[in-house]
Amino acid sequence: MESEPTRVMVAVNESTLKGYPHASISSKKAFEWTLKKIVRSNTSGFKLLLLHVQVQDEDGFDDMDSIYASPDDFRQMRERNKAKGLHLLEFFVKKCHDIGVGCEAWIRKGDPTEVICHEVRRVRPDFLVVGSRGLGPFQKVFVGTVSEFCVKHAECPVITIKRTAEESPQDPADD
Amino acid sequence: MESEPTRVMVAVNESTLKGYPHASISSKKAFEWTLKKIVRSNTSGFKLLLLHVQVQDEDGFDDMDSIYASPDDFRQMRERNKAKGLHLLEFFVKKCHDIGVGCEAWIRKGDPTEVICHEVRRVRPDFLVVGSRGLGPFQKVFVGTVSEFCVKHAECPVITIKRTAEESPQDPADD
Repeated sequence: MESEPTRVMVAVNESTLKGYPHASISSKKAFEWTLKKIVRSNTSGFKLLLLHVQVQDEDGFDDMDSIYASPDDFRQMRERNKAKGLHLLEFFVKKCHDIGVGCEAWIRKGDPTEVICHEVRRVRPDFLVVGSRGLGPFQKVFVGTVSEFCVKHAECPVITIKRTAEESPQDPADD
Repeated sequence: MESEPTRVMVAVNESTLKGYPHASISSKKAFEWTLKKIVRSNTSGFKLLLLHVQVQDEDGFDDMDSIYASPDDFRQMRERNKAKGLHLLEFFVKKCHDIGVGCEAWIRKGDPTEVICHEVRRVRPDFLVVGSRGLGPFQKVFVGTVSEFCVKHAECPVITIKRTAEESPQDPADD
């Protein structure tokens, strides 16, 4: 008899190249790697916990030209952002559904590093999967890496999945 | 139809407390975690690659009072060390055999960090599992950590499994 499924948290974000609702290359890669190499045919043995963190500043930039004249404008903006996040998660949830692996997906706002570590403490997954752009030390200085922070600070085992060279766009900071 | 099994390299070492043939608390933990949380009932979907690195200096210390008078003495020492390593691996291979998961096990000599990264390049596992004592930053200064080096330098995804507080001996540098 199988015990409770292994609960795997996968952090997913939007593509810097294509924007919402497209997932970043590295988070798509991390998700697909998990299905292929860990879950395999044992779909009842695993449950995926899909966390999407929305970075508030970035959304602000998109809406630079918008005019906020009433509290309603802010409510609408929040709803629009939520809808974008939901569209992103839909891709992952649909894939889980298609292959028959259980999943839960949710959105949080804030700094990805802090939010992911906070959510790990809250939901206690068996391990966390994060994608990584695989940047060199020089590139990291400018863009920071969520994966390294999680490896150090998340209170569960963490596995980092890098994009392959063929999957990386011309500017490696893009994703 | 299932594809080729997922090849999981697990680095295992001897206990600093009990010596050969006992495995360290952290490598036993990493191995058991892999079976419980990743392999689960899907024993045909995975193959474990068990690597034991023997540190030559440490063996030297054990044999401090021995007298080496001929080339044969060195040969005997090497054979004794090899036998110790084989006893250690036997524990892991037996467990794999009992639950029906394929495995390969082998011994290498040298610095664990370098050898593990070298063997990753050579055998190309899908990912690497390493145990960790879970030392604090102050303790790390004195004992170093193989797991952190592998996370940074191994050319495959790496997952680090820490011992729990209950599993840790009085001196956390022991294992």
